[in-house]
Amino acid sequence: MSTDAPARRTYSYLGPAGTFTEAALAQVPEARGHVWRPVHNVGEALADVAEGRSDAAMIAIENSIDGGVSTAQDALARIPNLRIVGEYLVPVEFVLVGKPGARLEDVQLVSAHPVAYAQCLGWLSANLPSHQHVPAASNVASAVGVLDGSSPADAAIAPPGITAHHDVQVLARGIGDTADAVTRFVLVTGPTAPPAPTGADKTSVIVELPEDRAGTLLEMLEQFSTRGINLSLIQSRPIGDALGRYRFVIDADGHIFDERMADALMGLRRFSPNVVFLGSYPRADRAVVHYPDRYSDEVFVEARDWLRGLVAGEPDA
Amino acid sequence: MSTDAPARRTYSYLGPAGTFTEAALAQVPEARGHVWRPVHNVGEALADVAEGRSDAAMIAIENSIDGGVSTAQDALARIPNLRIVGEYLVPVEFVLVGKPGARLEDVQLVSAHPVAYAQCLGWLSANLPSHQHVPAASNVASAVGVLDGSSPADAAIAPPGITAHHDVQVLARGIGDTADAVTRFVLVTGPTAPPAPTGADKTSVIVELPEDRAGTLLEMLEQFSTRGINLSLIQSRPIGDALGRYRFVIDADGHIFDERMADALMGLRRFSPNVVFLGSYPRADRAVVHYPDRYSDEVFVEARDWLRGLVAGEPDA
Amino acid sequence: MSTDAPARRTYSYLGPAGTFTEAALAQVPEARGHVWRPVHNVGEALADVAEGRSDAAMIAIENSIDGGVSTAQDALARIPNLRIVGEYLVPVEFVLVGKPGARLEDVQLVSAHPVAYAQCLGWLSANLPSHQHVPAASNVASAVGVLDGSSPADAAIAPPGITAHHDVQVLARGIGDTADAVTRFVLVTGPTAPPAPTGADKTSVIVELPEDRAGTLLEMLEQFSTRGINLSLIQSRPIGDALGRYRFVIDADGHIFDERMADALMGLRRFSPNVVFLGSYPRADRAVVHYPDRYSDEVFVEARDWLRGLVAGEPDA
Amino acid sequence: MSTDAPARRTYSYLGPAGTFTEAALAQVPEARGHVWRPVHNVGEALADVAEGRSDAAMIAIENSIDGGVSTAQDALARIPNLRIVGEYLVPVEFVLVGKPGARLEDVQLVSAHPVAYAQCLGWLSANLPSHQHVPAASNVASAVGVLDGSSPADAAIAPPGITAHHDVQVLARGIGDTADAVTRFVLVTGPTAPPAPTGADKTSVIVELPEDRAGTLLEMLEQFSTRGINLSLIQSRPIGDALGRYRFVIDADGHIFDERMADALMGLRRFSPNVVFLGSYPRADRAVVHYPDRYSDEVFVEARDWLRGLVAGEPDA
Repeated sequence: MSTDAPARRTYSYLGPAGTFTEAALAQVPEARGHVWRPVHNVGEALADVAEGRSDAAMIAIENSIDGGVSTAQDALARIPNLRIVGEYLVPVEFVLVGKPGARLEDVQLVSAHPVAYAQCLGWLSANLPSHQHVPAASNVASAVGVLDGSSPADAAIAPPGITAHHDVQVLARGIGDTADAVTRFVLVTGPTAPPAPTGADKTSVIVELPEDRAGTLLEMLEQFSTRGINLSLIQSRPIGDALGRYRFVIDADGHIFDERMADALMGLRRFSPNVVFLGSYPRADRAVVHYPDRYSDEVFVEARDWLRGLVAGEPDA
Repeated sequence: MSTDAPARRTYSYLGPAGTFTEAALAQVPEARGHVWRPVHNVGEALADVAEGRSDAAMIAIENSIDGGVSTAQDALARIPNLRIVGEYLVPVEFVLVGKPGARLEDVQLVSAHPVAYAQCLGWLSANLPSHQHVPAASNVASAVGVLDGSSPADAAIAPPGITAHHDVQVLARGIGDTADAVTRFVLVTGPTAPPAPTGADKTSVIVELPEDRAGTLLEMLEQFSTRGINLSLIQSRPIGDALGRYRFVIDADGHIFDERMADALMGLRRFSPNVVFLGSYPRADRAVVHYPDRYSDEVFVEARDWLRGLVAGEPDA
Repeated sequence: MSTDAPARRTYSYLGPAGTFTEAALAQVPEARGHVWRPVHNVGEALADVAEGRSDAAMIAIENSIDGGVSTAQDALARIPNLRIVGEYLVPVEFVLVGKPGARLEDVQLVSAHPVAYAQCLGWLSANLPSHQHVPAASNVASAVGVLDGSSPADAAIAPPGITAHHDVQVLARGIGDTADAVTRFVLVTGPTAPPAPTGADKTSVIVELPEDRAGTLLEMLEQFSTRGINLSLIQSRPIGDALGRYRFVIDADGHIFDERMADALMGLRRFSPNVVFLGSYPRADRAVVHYPDRYSDEVFVEARDWLRGLVAGEPDA
Repeated sequence: MSTDAPARRTYSYLGPAGTFTEAALAQVPEARGHVWRPVHNVGEALADVAEGRSDAAMIAIENSIDGGVSTAQDALARIPNLRIVGEYLVPVEFVLVGKPGARLEDVQLVSAHPVAYAQCLGWLSANLPSHQHVPAASNVASAVGVLDGSSPADAAIAPPGITAHHDVQVLARGIGDTADAVTRFVLVTGPTAPPAPTGADKTSVIVELPEDRAGTLLEMLEQFSTRGINLSLIQSRPIGDALGRYRFVIDADGHIFDERMADALMGLRRFSPNVVFLGSYPRADRAVVHYPDRYSDEVFVEARDWLRGLVAGEPDA
């Protein structure tokens, strides 16, 4: 029996503490008590994994307020040997914070990352019509600058999680102009067997089309539809080597351990000059995947047995 | 060690000797020296095989002048445990024959099966404008009746093969109105492993559509097109249990031992409430099957290996 | 100005009086009191129309007991300027008839067209096990020969309609081996505006595929499925000019006056090197055509109006 | 006859002068000499058009460095009565600028919009390893702050166009980490007839899928592929009213005045509960659209004439 401490794992995320990405990482039970490594952008986070500095990286993948979603998609397409093992949703909410004791009516200068500032402009116009904007480098740097005096601002726009890390006074909550906004994050590791299916899984792939002609996109999608697989995301991204060449980022309902998904993946592999399998993993919303009965595992197994009988010359069942 | 003579096999065919079906059977090297069993119709021939009275049956399957092609298709759909193992083409030609010594200019009464008669009407109108038709029960019975005097006719319409079995005088050749007409025959056995692929094979199936709605036929055909498989025959046949329900008789290019065909067959099996596999066998015309490289066996094997690697969590190749 | 009686129309049909084809023609109210012209085969009937000898022809088009259905399809594909204007179903039933006073127990020789004979073989084997077959040229000639003594037979197999034309004794009814068998007939004219839609119509076309490659059949069928149109018949027929080239005989649910059908027909015309429009006409079974609401005429009209607005630069509705 | 000066038009764009968006607007000949109205974000620019304050708005639509592309797509989906009338490409290049007389070796503090900063990090790490980042509110505010002393920074990251508006010293050119990066902009107006086709056009639409089930996306894409239309962009965007409901942003090759595109648009309109037509306009890259001959205008016109003849009962051509 070993007396060694269990190995500590390292998780890279867009830091510093208090970002939306950190809020996503906080949803990962396995990450608790391990090393959380703040980095400056998605590329750095994925490079940490690819080059072995980290065991996993949490990155924003859709509708991010921390920026850079198409950057994330392009990096996943380019860097080999990455696998998504989990998906997490973080509500995009903002709070206005000041130093302890600060009051809303005294606020004149508001520190904010420009993207966050744009998303709170409606509230600011209505509630602080005479305010002025002091740009900040991130959604956390805004608050830190107010606290340590390195910014001239009286208040800062920050994610709600800021209160866990800094002794701030919350002046207003829910100041974002879009209620119910959510950012989707994924946890990325190196090559690994996919996590066990839960019945509420998705599979992510990036698929290059064979040629730039009408019909190849259709042919690609038939790989899914002919197996009863629904897509929750499809997005074209220019490949970048020549005008008009596209790859597609796809999230499909189901798990690689499902017969229909395995069959579709093989179909894609045969069809496409380049398929990147990003992983099968539980959906953040836990929505159970529904599909017609005729695409169940039993049906696939039965068809395989039937074929085997035909090849062997057996009588019809 | 046995001293027995090798077992003799029995082949059923639409008789009697001299029919087009016998001409097809004469193309089968393995049938020589074995028992040829003449029967009265396709149903009887297939029943012989299904019930063990014969080892194989030769039947017309397309464009038959001996009649009954849709009957053949329906019988193949209905009787289980039949397999097509070979395909044969017989030119549909007719000769006009009489007793030895007969002369064309003396012919007044022409004995002929009504279907053959209709196919030679142009020639008869031009060359024997004042002739009259005496119906016969088959393309051989016509000639036999003339020879044995049981028919009042002076001449008979018969297949060219009649001369091998009966001492007739050929009065005219090539009297059919359609040059180049060909009938397609298939050799049918009980359950057996398919004959080895030759590169010039076809696969026959009968597929029932799941429901009577727009789109299911399309979905069925996608099982082939998404694997690069061409169809040389597709024909709808009413199932007969309710108006508007159809099954499809299909000949597809390729062999069940081809990966793409095996994959398509499993797709059909999953899709359809009822698929009858009729067999994979060499094409009569020996036309090599061409298909895009991306549907080759290697591509299928490679995709399977790739999937296996993903499931095992291996790094990208 | 003429004082003549209204012009009499001429209808060609496979004769003589008493055939199944005549039974079909008897279902056409407009044909009553006009000239019915018996001919010897389908080709002759269609040529009568094409060359102006007749106003219309009744021909068997599916499951015919009078023979020649693929002949009919090929003739419709080849002869221009024909239009189907009506569809009729005739039950395929047979009766055994003799001279007045004849008795079933005395029958030894049975006169029958060979195709009809094959269809009654079960009944004959059971009820007249020691009978012999005397072939006849048609389903009517069989009975006529018995009546006038030109055939040695004691009885004849004939359609039930024979009793309307000849003074025969019916010895047995319903002697066909397949109950509920039905033959489908169509009434064919020269070029004419289609009969008014009834809501229970079908449209018949013959479509040549552009090339012999996987996918063109699919593409052709999409012309229907993308407009919500169901097919009740699809049949491949060799074109005949080269091996492996096919045309497709298609019956589609709906009328050319339906927007979705007109749109599909134009799509076919653009797609195919050769489309033969055979007509839109009421279904014999009067089954109302159902289709998703989104393919209704209103939806097509609305889309056209919308497009017109876009082109004109109008504001969104 | 009027002696009035011609009416001046107003163009909204993401300001201030010097942004990439302004560089796009500078490519519009018709905009010269008219009013250029700088605004703070894409929403404001489009609202100006929708509410009549401006005649047109230039907005980034793909790969923007000024941020907010999915915001732009969502705004176009939501705000009615907008039309894209032109497309423009702007290379994404950055320069490092300082006050007149400044020298690169003296730079310690670099002012930059955070997104631009992330894109130049490679160059900065290599060439100014000990620099520090001072965030700025925009790509122009960075330089202005350096010039007017409101920022403590020694240098600013800015678009090359900054030199046209401000008296800056260029310290380095081409400092972006991605060479050849390009941002795509579109010029948006109120409802108007589309600009005349050039043969090198694209058509933009936003299409809602009817239901969340496998196959509807395929069905939508068939509207294009069955008319030989290629897509250069397809992107799914959550509709936002319920999880899993998507709309698709699509750029298709061709012009609404092309028969095939008009036909496809009507097909989309019939298919989708909601289609937003954004416009047909010349492609920025002037790449001529190629398509199979069978989708040419003549083919569509011919098919329409053919249908008209059928409906009228005319003889076959």
